[in-house]
Amino acid sequence: MRSAICRSDADSIRIHGLDLTTDIIGKVDLGQMAFLEIWGRLPTPEENAVFNALVVSLVEHGLTPSVLAARLTYLGAPDSLQAAVAAGLSGLGTVFVGSIEGAARMLQEAKAADATEDQIPALAREIVARFKAEKRIIPGLGHPIHKQVDPRTGRLLSIAAENGFRGRHVQLLEAVAAEAERSLDRHLPINVSGAIGAIASELGMDWRVCRGIGLIARTIGLVAHLLEEIRSPLARELWLRTEHEAQPPE
Amino acid sequence: MRSAICRSDADSIRIHGLDLTTDIIGKVDLGQMAFLEIWGRLPTPEENAVFNALVVSLVEHGLTPSVLAARLTYLGAPDSLQAAVAAGLSGLGTVFVGSIEGAARMLQEAKAADATEDQIPALAREIVARFKAEKRIIPGLGHPIHKQVDPRTGRLLSIAAENGFRGRHVQLLEAVAAEAERSLDRHLPINVSGAIGAIASELGMDWRVCRGIGLIARTIGLVAHLLEEIRSPLARELWLRTEHEAQPPE
Amino acid sequence: MRSAICRSDADSIRIHGLDLTTDIIGKVDLGQMAFLEIWGRLPTPEENAVFNALVVSLVEHGLTPSVLAARLTYLGAPDSLQAAVAAGLSGLGTVFVGSIEGAARMLQEAKAADATEDQIPALAREIVARFKAEKRIIPGLGHPIHKQVDPRTGRLLSIAAENGFRGRHVQLLEAVAAEAERSLDRHLPINVSGAIGAIASELGMDWRVCRGIGLIARTIGLVAHLLEEIRSPLARELWLRTEHEAQPPE
Amino acid sequence: MRSAICRSDADSIRIHGLDLTTDIIGKVDLGQMAFLEIWGRLPTPEENAVFNALVVSLVEHGLTPSVLAARLTYLGAPDSLQAAVAAGLSGLGTVFVGSIEGAARMLQEAKAADATEDQIPALAREIVARFKAEKRIIPGLGHPIHKQVDPRTGRLLSIAAENGFRGRHVQLLEAVAAEAERSLDRHLPINVSGAIGAIASELGMDWRVCRGIGLIARTIGLVAHLLEEIRSPLARELWLRTEHEAQPPE
Repeated sequence: MRSAICRSDADSIRIHGLDLTTDIIGKVDLGQMAFLEIWGRLPTPEENAVFNALVVSLVEHGLTPSVLAARLTYLGAPDSLQAAVAAGLSGLGTVFVGSIEGAARMLQEAKAADATEDQIPALAREIVARFKAEKRIIPGLGHPIHKQVDPRTGRLLSIAAENGFRGRHVQLLEAVAAEAERSLDRHLPINVSGAIGAIASELGMDWRVCRGIGLIARTIGLVAHLLEEIRSPLARELWLRTEHEAQPPE
Repeated sequence: MRSAICRSDADSIRIHGLDLTTDIIGKVDLGQMAFLEIWGRLPTPEENAVFNALVVSLVEHGLTPSVLAARLTYLGAPDSLQAAVAAGLSGLGTVFVGSIEGAARMLQEAKAADATEDQIPALAREIVARFKAEKRIIPGLGHPIHKQVDPRTGRLLSIAAENGFRGRHVQLLEAVAAEAERSLDRHLPINVSGAIGAIASELGMDWRVCRGIGLIARTIGLVAHLLEEIRSPLARELWLRTEHEAQPPE
Repeated sequence: MRSAICRSDADSIRIHGLDLTTDIIGKVDLGQMAFLEIWGRLPTPEENAVFNALVVSLVEHGLTPSVLAARLTYLGAPDSLQAAVAAGLSGLGTVFVGSIEGAARMLQEAKAADATEDQIPALAREIVARFKAEKRIIPGLGHPIHKQVDPRTGRLLSIAAENGFRGRHVQLLEAVAAEAERSLDRHLPINVSGAIGAIASELGMDWRVCRGIGLIARTIGLVAHLLEEIRSPLARELWLRTEHEAQPPE
Repeated sequence: MRSAICRSDADSIRIHGLDLTTDIIGKVDLGQMAFLEIWGRLPTPEENAVFNALVVSLVEHGLTPSVLAARLTYLGAPDSLQAAVAAGLSGLGTVFVGSIEGAARMLQEAKAADATEDQIPALAREIVARFKAEKRIIPGLGHPIHKQVDPRTGRLLSIAAENGFRGRHVQLLEAVAAEAERSLDRHLPINVSGAIGAIASELGMDWRVCRGIGLIARTIGLVAHLLEEIRSPLARELWLRTEHEAQPPE
């Protein structure tokens, strides 16, 4: 058994080789720290810009099911803030933030990184044909609310491009979106999960932990919502109303 | 029912009044975003420096019980990264990161913010006397491993002071530590949880969500450990060894 | 490290000394099994009757905050039923089922088991005086909805009495309720949590795991609600309505 | 929004039409109650025997990863028993108890219930061929420890048969096991998850909640292990040893 991330003794804590007290605290900001922790090294300025943009875009999205679950949990266990946050994270599965993972997986399993630019259109056709044959939804495309264009997608893709991260994964996702639109005859813009999955793949993040970007972001959001719940509660009202309305008739 | 944090419609997402696409992504980094989300406004440069230092200091502390719980959970549910992170957070209660909350509560309930500098020593004597009478451990002092001086504490307190956040909460905690040492006749240095609780109180953070700083930080750490678990697993070995060793005799 | 509960090898699994295949499956029912697992031996018929009554009384209480949290979690992670149940359990803290623990703790810390019947009234006066002085709510008394008499309380106390479990803990709780009513001049009937805490204490259950009775019971309830959520969903509607209603004005 | 499970008001609580106080407490035992809660009616004696056998078989299996995660969580949050149980349940995913779901899904999606006995062998061949073609493991067969015969499987299948529940789902699973053994040329006995998945299908349980049988059972086991952890702790030792052993070299 071996973990290479941290070495600590009575005098010091070293994280990926950097001393927490002298090299990190006061010198490395939160975005850089998250990159260091996950990638094992500090980011370049370009990586830093792109990674911060990805996480920041997922921190807050209103009263999501995850936020409501956390607030309802806090109502019953106000002395266990961690249990409320844990409950909120538990629902960040395949349906919501988990779709980032689906897009990253699709692009990484297609070995986009090893392809030439010329090979991208053929890869995209293969992917769309396979998902169509298996009657599966292509991850990272379309959005129930932002039907026309997800406002965040273009911004994230621009920041990636400006910083040198419009590589094969992004190109492949764009090609998949175009091919899907033609093949399925529906407007299927890249959504924010798709953009994040593609850009995280450009940063070299294993698809199996891409859901983690959402977890890091949403933990921040959940703490903010629990603070609001303390000051201006809504969970009790939500509970009592729902219980009253949904009871079976006598 | 009302939540003031976020307003979203088909065209835009506004968070505490800022437009996510045009004002936040690419302009606000992760530390600033966390501050915005929780405080409802962007931080000053001084607040930003101090807040980043607090969170960064808690991201990683090796193979903690929380990390082991997350890795063992991942072993059984590798397709639910969020469940493994949630399991890891569930143990961040009163014993570990939760002690931040204890220190912040003690300082905030003493109404340190309303005291003059002259009143601090008397407040400290009251606090120590009360904890002593109730046979309770004073939160934020002492450390099982870093017996002499926690290397992180001095660094965090320096950064706070340099940025104008050595206010009454920090002064009161220092006075409590000195008084406790005299009264209990034991070396009781301020530990990292105490320093964070005091500095978070300087930043105006309600003690009831101070545990959240640890949750935000450790979620990052848990994602990194789960990535390591995928590449270089230890949970299965830990399980099999423990099961084998701890079985009752036949 | 030693765990005495279970011994398993390639051929057999022994639980508290009984062989799972030959002694337990098909011979021991679920209530007896839970008793065996927790107490380390099979129950007497009287213990069995009382223990089953306790657990059964907590299985279902409608669309509680815990049930809503589980259903909202399932909406985002339908392939992780365990995460939805875990989210639902996370809120069973001090406010709801956790109050069982408070009552059991109060009775066990008063060393009711060691008292004679004559000493009970004095113990009750001490307890009520102490909670009054500390301005704390006495656990196990009163109920927000069932103001007059909780219909379950009398039934549980009868079953306990019929089976020989109206011992000192139950007597002390009754004396505390009477004393509280006189001293605080309010109608404070024993509620179902109080009755369960007292009866679990009669069964010899450590107060630190009494919350577990509620966890065992509610896990059953959560599974049933998630099945209903699959067949007749309400979480999506609850989310969309709440999000729409609670948005801040433009 | 409508939930048909429970109706409660100030005077009574009705669960699937039965009054909790007069019809359930003291009359319905825990196994029957779980059946009532999930199926919406009380079980027949035969259903009761079979259902109890299924749940009882999963309560305890030693120091599993789930138990270790719960004990490590309790170490950090001893005042939140529910968080420790929730952490333990979080890992009951696809790898361990979740495999029940896989077996039940395979049998229910094959529409075993609608088949005649003559059609079973052909259904089994189709299933094995499909899993082989897709290079997927057939759920419910084989076991890492109990290589020859899982001691629980035969017992559960006997109890099912004795009570009239050796129907098409059980027959199909047996046919799949025989076909898999021939086709893959490996000994692949039905394991306990497979038997439970098949028998739960006989009882009419939707595969999407079959994982719930394991959750109900293991919650009991987790409470018992947390009681043992309080009396005879091992989590701290497990943590300190692992941290010490697995640190990277200086």
